[in-house]
Amino acid sequence: MQAEIITIGDEILIGQIVDTNSAFIGKALNSIGVSVYQITSIQDDKAHLLKAFAEAEKNADIIIITGGLGPTKDDITKHTLAEYFNDTLIQDDAVLKHVEQLFKKYINQPISDVNKKQALVPSKAKVLTNRFGTAPGMWIEKGDKTFISLPGVPYEMKSLIELEVLPKLAEKYKRPFIIHKTLLTYGLGESVVAERIEAIEDGLPKHIKLAYLPALGSVRLRLSGIGEDEAKLEQEIQIEIVKILPLIQDIFVGYQDNTEGLELIISKQLTQKGQTLALAESCTGGKLAEQFTSHSGASAFFKGAIVSYATQTKIDVLELPEDLINRFSVVSSEVAKAMATNVRKKMNSDFAIATTGNAGPTKGDSDAEVGTVFIAIATKNGVEAHEFTMGNHRERVINKTVNKALELLQKEIFKN
Amino acid sequence: MQAEIITIGDEILIGQIVDTNSAFIGKALNSIGVSVYQITSIQDDKAHLLKAFAEAEKNADIIIITGGLGPTKDDITKHTLAEYFNDTLIQDDAVLKHVEQLFKKYINQPISDVNKKQALVPSKAKVLTNRFGTAPGMWIEKGDKTFISLPGVPYEMKSLIELEVLPKLAEKYKRPFIIHKTLLTYGLGESVVAERIEAIEDGLPKHIKLAYLPALGSVRLRLSGIGEDEAKLEQEIQIEIVKILPLIQDIFVGYQDNTEGLELIISKQLTQKGQTLALAESCTGGKLAEQFTSHSGASAFFKGAIVSYATQTKIDVLELPEDLINRFSVVSSEVAKAMATNVRKKMNSDFAIATTGNAGPTKGDSDAEVGTVFIAIATKNGVEAHEFTMGNHRERVINKTVNKALELLQKEIFKN
Repeated sequence: MQAEIITIGDEILIGQIVDTNSAFIGKALNSIGVSVYQITSIQDDKAHLLKAFAEAEKNADIIIITGGLGPTKDDITKHTLAEYFNDTLIQDDAVLKHVEQLFKKYINQPISDVNKKQALVPSKAKVLTNRFGTAPGMWIEKGDKTFISLPGVPYEMKSLIELEVLPKLAEKYKRPFIIHKTLLTYGLGESVVAERIEAIEDGLPKHIKLAYLPALGSVRLRLSGIGEDEAKLEQEIQIEIVKILPLIQDIFVGYQDNTEGLELIISKQLTQKGQTLALAESCTGGKLAEQFTSHSGASAFFKGAIVSYATQTKIDVLELPEDLINRFSVVSSEVAKAMATNVRKKMNSDFAIATTGNAGPTKGDSDAEVGTVFIAIATKNGVEAHEFTMGNHRERVINKTVNKALELLQKEIFKN
Repeated sequence: MQAEIITIGDEILIGQIVDTNSAFIGKALNSIGVSVYQITSIQDDKAHLLKAFAEAEKNADIIIITGGLGPTKDDITKHTLAEYFNDTLIQDDAVLKHVEQLFKKYINQPISDVNKKQALVPSKAKVLTNRFGTAPGMWIEKGDKTFISLPGVPYEMKSLIELEVLPKLAEKYKRPFIIHKTLLTYGLGESVVAERIEAIEDGLPKHIKLAYLPALGSVRLRLSGIGEDEAKLEQEIQIEIVKILPLIQDIFVGYQDNTEGLELIISKQLTQKGQTLALAESCTGGKLAEQFTSHSGASAFFKGAIVSYATQTKIDVLELPEDLINRFSVVSSEVAKAMATNVRKKMNSDFAIATTGNAGPTKGDSDAEVGTVFIAIATKNGVEAHEFTMGNHRERVINKTVNKALELLQKEIFKN
């Protein structure tokens, strides 16, 4: 069972926005056993849409189209779908009523002429109700193939996928099971990891694939299997994991679902243990806090953060001795340790992380080389700081520091 | 001049990672007058690669391929390129030396057998030196068409695009100019904005397109033009902007380059005026701080943030009276105002933003409904708080709150 995702909109092709919808849809389809053959992002152009529809119909059973459903003139998906299916647009009264209600509720105005057009759908389409917006989802069948058109606004698309598309696909198509298991490792490069487990990789059964996903400081190993018998497939993948684990035990930090980062693994561990965390961030500028709080349930373990970006804030809010900063500079092991110690005490937490460094591209408040970073972890047993050289690319320095801080924290959690 | 971007890797299709490379490449190509016809994401599968290469060669002059260049067995791009061009892989001595040096420098070890393979390239390829990694970029010409293969690791890809690909493309191809101008508006919906400027949209010359990009609380209007004469094109777009501005003056907040957010516009304004900012974040959990500090130069205006996630942290660090919290609850106008006032005082800043609310999905430390958010802005003239209902989707509540906070802050900056 194969799907193709088509995302429509010049804003994707000119790089004005990143297409996050496709990853969400890919993951959702996998969860019900549908593989994604291809993702195709195309321009707001009728001829291009028609060509992409025809191509996708050849490659896939299920074609999911996002974008181009707004009420403005640059949105052409609906008209082009009607043309592709030799169909005409008709008014759907339920959609019209829904749009009228949204207008009444949110801006207390009668529906405008432009928005009335949102109620037009191809006569062959089944409407998928969009609870969060005015553009309806559409489901059009052509023999065994199904075309599904969804709005490009992420939360509207997501709710349609979850509430309408997945249940309907599961009902219509018989599907195999797809299972992904991802092992997260920190500390060694892709090729070194690959050499360690080469023999196992060579002996994998044909329906199980191994992939390496290197990132800053980490490598994820993903085993992906497809099969008719879910329990058997689960077991087959587990057998491979049992072979791999002894070979990577020094670098293995945990399992990961498709998008689960180390911050979520840590969140679960801290919550289970009833322990708490505080942060003092300088060069990471709030990104560590943002990572922890992006997941629900953070209030169970996360006390908070002091983003002491300016040196004066380190003195005024974190209460670092000015003398310490003058002696060692803001980018130093001593300052990192004092930051972690003070924030842990202020917030009365079990663990504290502090980051201070120079993310670049210019030197800022410190004389330290761009890319020099100190990370300190404070626990009830004391505080330790580590120095790193993270290169000279701002975004990379910040992300590497975040990953390294998570890695160091997890090691401490294991110990405590 | 048209390009197609092909991104290779199952991790994209199963939704394990979001493809951010394509947006970067799309924007980079636009900057030298190359339009992107299509972005195609495909599986790690030889037949699929060959098909995608052939299809892209039909559609585009320039084919940029990312991913699948690692040293592990799941990486097949290089071999497939050789097959596509009826070519063989040969060892490139300069690449081998570079990989050896990287190994020596970073892990102080001789190069492994697996990594030696990184030096193999198709004999028809010109090597593009990858300063930051072991996988070389490759440039293969076929008549007027150019295939360019790049590693998928973002910072390696980015440096290759900037240092190698763009200069070489600019040298080889005569290109038109592409100009995008984006007007950022806050406060009205897409259809209402569209109705206001309908007459102007209908009268646009054929080589200038208008697009609407709705997001949470904002609509971006993008004018995109293509032409041979850069100065003339710039002027033509400016003429349209001058017509549009009077119609949106109540909602217009500034211009935006392709990805520039309101936080960057604010950063520039504060830096110019020599004014400073402090944050007290609760429900936004550090995301506001992260947005400001993700751009270089933040130290010019950003004092820092107190992410007072736990109620106790609001008392211990922000020094809010416990009594105030008990009387009004943590999610209240009074608490938001006290947070903003206190952080502004603590960090001695010109402006302060505070956020407190319930991002959901569960209620946390407060009885407030999920989605209820208070945002306060403190200035030298006092403090004001605003209440919002942001819906019941965690990610959306956080992002909407961030956007709303930026919008409110900018209005205050204008006033002060």
